[in-house]
Amino acid sequence: MFSNDDLSSLRWDATSGAVEIIDQTLLPHTLRWVHLDSLDAYCHAISYMQVRGAPLIGITAAFGLAHALQENPSDAGMAEAFESLLATRPTAVNLRWALEKILAEVTELLPFARAEAALQCAVELRAEDIANCARIGDNGLALLRQLDAGDTLNIMTHCNAGWLATIQWGTALAPVYKALAAGLKLHVWVSETRPRNQGTNLTAWELGRAGVPCTVVADNSCGQLMRQGQVDCVIVGSDRTAANGDVCNKIGTYLKALAAADNNIPFYVAVPESTIDWRCPAGDQIPIEARDAAEVLAIAGIDAAGENREINLAAAGTRAANPAFDITPAKWVTSLITEHGSFDASEEALASLRVQLGC
Amino acid sequence: MFSNDDLSSLRWDATSGAVEIIDQTLLPHTLRWVHLDSLDAYCHAISYMQVRGAPLIGITAAFGLAHALQENPSDAGMAEAFESLLATRPTAVNLRWALEKILAEVTELLPFARAEAALQCAVELRAEDIANCARIGDNGLALLRQLDAGDTLNIMTHCNAGWLATIQWGTALAPVYKALAAGLKLHVWVSETRPRNQGTNLTAWELGRAGVPCTVVADNSCGQLMRQGQVDCVIVGSDRTAANGDVCNKIGTYLKALAAADNNIPFYVAVPESTIDWRCPAGDQIPIEARDAAEVLAIAGIDAAGENREINLAAAGTRAANPAFDITPAKWVTSLITEHGSFDASEEALASLRVQLGC
Repeated sequence: MFSNDDLSSLRWDATSGAVEIIDQTLLPHTLRWVHLDSLDAYCHAISYMQVRGAPLIGITAAFGLAHALQENPSDAGMAEAFESLLATRPTAVNLRWALEKILAEVTELLPFARAEAALQCAVELRAEDIANCARIGDNGLALLRQLDAGDTLNIMTHCNAGWLATIQWGTALAPVYKALAAGLKLHVWVSETRPRNQGTNLTAWELGRAGVPCTVVADNSCGQLMRQGQVDCVIVGSDRTAANGDVCNKIGTYLKALAAADNNIPFYVAVPESTIDWRCPAGDQIPIEARDAAEVLAIAGIDAAGENREINLAAAGTRAANPAFDITPAKWVTSLITEHGSFDASEEALASLRVQLGC
Repeated sequence: MFSNDDLSSLRWDATSGAVEIIDQTLLPHTLRWVHLDSLDAYCHAISYMQVRGAPLIGITAAFGLAHALQENPSDAGMAEAFESLLATRPTAVNLRWALEKILAEVTELLPFARAEAALQCAVELRAEDIANCARIGDNGLALLRQLDAGDTLNIMTHCNAGWLATIQWGTALAPVYKALAAGLKLHVWVSETRPRNQGTNLTAWELGRAGVPCTVVADNSCGQLMRQGQVDCVIVGSDRTAANGDVCNKIGTYLKALAAADNNIPFYVAVPESTIDWRCPAGDQIPIEARDAAEVLAIAGIDAAGENREINLAAAGTRAANPAFDITPAKWVTSLITEHGSFDASEEALASLRVQLGC
């Protein structure tokens, strides 16, 4: 029924239109595909982070809007589905980007024609994302080749910006997969990425499936590894990049950027065009999602018998705070890697890119 | 039987000589006192981190050596006990410091007199530690008063350098307790301190018992909280401080220091004299303890039924690395707070302190 599934996070069937995603909340212990068959299922998949990663969120939302238009293609139905999907995650800029792409295609159509056009658009966004990620991989590979001295290249990453965060290839990890294919010797430091441990749960898992050697470390270790000369570069993704090059990404990114700067290590941010928020002049204007304190106070895993379990880490009554993202000022970013090439993280470089793209 | 136990981590009975410690591996869910009645029990308590924190490790080892001398006061027995205790934790400089203090007192004595003299010395070290921590608290309070604008003072700390890490008061937390007693309005950001979560398990617990409002955050959050103006200062402890002011402390300390510097926030390190390694010229000469990868890959807590459980976080076969400490270069430290006053973290300031102390 589905094709092209092996290293893909969202698959769809061209005949039936069926869409399935990997429930990433169950990784790395269980691989389960979830069929999305209602607007609620799409919203749930995004807000409960069964799918996560800016590009995948956007494309899932696009398929979700297409699905909603099958059920109710009226103006009111369309507006309601748009708002419901948009509200699932407040920070991801390409959630809005993808939904607006669909709206732009279908709003002028008569209701009966909207669902099909929306699905067509979602399918194109999916194919485009795969192609863009491959290009980010090629552009990142060019930077890695400059660092490659023949020894093992030690790359540090944070959170998950691999094929689980996109459709295929990934953003931050695309250069890693391209480098692997090009025969470079590689090792990846995976920071576990508390509180949700996307590094341990997703990045280590997906690198393992692709055959990339990697080592998980506590987020706290990343500075010391850099001080000890065990890191050749850092590559992270971005949930939202401001027009001045400030990067909003998973909480903890900023600390890695500071440590990289203090140790003269290149700090690269893989940025698909879709995550650049041209309307946002600087990072400090990006709202930071405050997630549930329970994510800090409790954690899930499997016990010795292989059963999924959630345990409390803190004493009853402990207060916690859980900002989900941080802002890395552009001055700490060595280069932005986009599908259009690599650039300085500066207002000037991004302004030229914008002119070049005509957007 | 025991006195002075309420906010103390190691209690001893003057009549029987019995020593009990809190098994800190069971916190924050269970408070259990463990009777130490053999050299093995002392070594186990230190190496399995039932006791941890540089000052407490040193004093526990001192009582351990005194205990061993009751059983075998010969030169050979003394040397063997010394080596066994010294090997329990390679990084903590005041483990050696405390053991050498005992040796200096008892080596010249005839064997039959050694145990009593050693116990006397351990008891004195314990009392001295309490007094020194109280002085660190007073000296830190003077710095906090300079920052206090009448609003709630937001202090960030890392790991646990409170009364659970010493005997009473703590080092990094002593100024907090002194400030509370002085009527300052306070709130403490507790970074959870992966991989062993001493922040969540110990610091939040002990602050709670003392009535200090606190909030646990993922280590990753600390930079963003500083960027948002929610942190007035950082105070951490030190396991070992080099003669140039470089600080070796729990992994993750360095990242907080970088973020504090980037946001013009004072970064204070509470340093008892016993943790200054005059023989170590710079931080990079301090060996970094590599602990078991399992600490990163699995974690303990309590399930919904209140049972202690350990769960695996990572997929089977995942590799991990676990450096336990990092080095914060002196240039990122605003002040060292000692029992003798507060100083610049510089070779010059420490050299004058050394002259003053005649050591």
